[in-house]
Amino acid sequence: MRNLRFTISYDGTAYSGFQIQPKADTIQQRLEEAVYLLTGEQVKVASSGRTDAGVHAKAQVINFTTNSKIPVERWCLALNARLPKDIVAHTAEEVPLSFHSRKAAKRKTYCYTIRAVRFPDVFHRNYEYHHPTHLNVEAIREALPCLLGEHDFTSFCTVRTDKEVKVRTLYEARMVLETDELTGGGQIERIRIIVSGNGFLYNMVRIIVGTLIQIGEGKRPSSDMQRILEARNRAEAGPTAEAMGLMLWKVDY
Amino acid sequence: MRNLRFTISYDGTAYSGFQIQPKADTIQQRLEEAVYLLTGEQVKVASSGRTDAGVHAKAQVINFTTNSKIPVERWCLALNARLPKDIVAHTAEEVPLSFHSRKAAKRKTYCYTIRAVRFPDVFHRNYEYHHPTHLNVEAIREALPCLLGEHDFTSFCTVRTDKEVKVRTLYEARMVLETDELTGGGQIERIRIIVSGNGFLYNMVRIIVGTLIQIGEGKRPSSDMQRILEARNRAEAGPTAEAMGLMLWKVDY
Repeated sequence: MRNLRFTISYDGTAYSGFQIQPKADTIQQRLEEAVYLLTGEQVKVASSGRTDAGVHAKAQVINFTTNSKIPVERWCLALNARLPKDIVAHTAEEVPLSFHSRKAAKRKTYCYTIRAVRFPDVFHRNYEYHHPTHLNVEAIREALPCLLGEHDFTSFCTVRTDKEVKVRTLYEARMVLETDELTGGGQIERIRIIVSGNGFLYNMVRIIVGTLIQIGEGKRPSSDMQRILEARNRAEAGPTAEAMGLMLWKVDY
Repeated sequence: MRNLRFTISYDGTAYSGFQIQPKADTIQQRLEEAVYLLTGEQVKVASSGRTDAGVHAKAQVINFTTNSKIPVERWCLALNARLPKDIVAHTAEEVPLSFHSRKAAKRKTYCYTIRAVRFPDVFHRNYEYHHPTHLNVEAIREALPCLLGEHDFTSFCTVRTDKEVKVRTLYEARMVLETDELTGGGQIERIRIIVSGNGFLYNMVRIIVGTLIQIGEGKRPSSDMQRILEARNRAEAGPTAEAMGLMLWKVDY
């Protein structure tokens, strides 16, 4: 018995999220099918954490145990040949049997991308949220630092959750701006919100971003972020931002 | 009667190219349908040049004449609401009736993207050609300068063409390298070949790139490019590179 760990990326557009569920097309099921086609084994694929319907992953980490003797360096090519084109395995390695991709994860990084110009970018249309009107990026930037460190993030967690402890630590909460190549005039085209932490509650990044968008729209002051955090009440925060803009960027162990 | 000029972008993946043809889904037909839905007019949309099936455009230029009195600043939003999500109008302006987007074009720029790492990038899978093995980028770079200037490009033109004069002038033929963010170790992830000129023959960019790929693979020396150019014989050049990697980048007037 061997425990294999993979880095995979996926375009979540066509899927009902990572986790297997009845009558739905999921990343986990496609991965387990690919392993079955390759080895004949019915494995259970574990991940660093599930991603929701429409959410993407640049470098998700998964693992599963197998009796297959296929050398580790052949696994990615063999799996990719059995996976749909929107799921790709990039790296494979053998890890101790005790390794579990969720339990061992030390830090996760997400990136949420907002396209903040009038018309969508056809080439990124499934990978960024299109906000056609102006956003005040300075107001967004000012709202970020209060999220850093250890906090009870109850306000930024969907109410339908079974996790009782809502305390998480954020190591990074920053904004990266990209300007428009076409107009060339330095107009802001894309706003990326990058957050990393020791763990994230259900919908946490998307609720933080939904709140930041309201701040950028001038519907709330930047100082609201601190107030919402302290309120520990989901109703105080903004809406859950659309899934398509969210990408699991990397997982550190 | 007014003549309107637009900058549009499109993801060519789902289309049989720009130009209208029977029983095929084309960009031109989708544009003409959108104008019809908006104004009730059956216009003929002209472009800076057709693009083949699967080829993309970041900033294609089109124009057509209309009797509609819709103010020019409302056209993009109105057209986008009637276009599929993979075709987007970005800018609109009124131009003299004499303007024709193909005849008036002074310079066109194309970008061909090659992903040169082992596995494809799911997020760019329709917008770059995946070459899973190593390419010698220095050899490719050395082959480019001889293309600059005025030449008879017969060797780089598909034989089925009706254009008799095969002389074109290239102003730019350069390579841009992008390194892999994931591995971080400076590994080359993407090779972009950027060419601009006063006009391009049928399949010219794709045949140049197909030849460059053979040079990068070590199947030909860099000096072959000069020899092929002088031979004025399509059979001397490499194969036509796949359409998906090609993008019409911009058109200057």
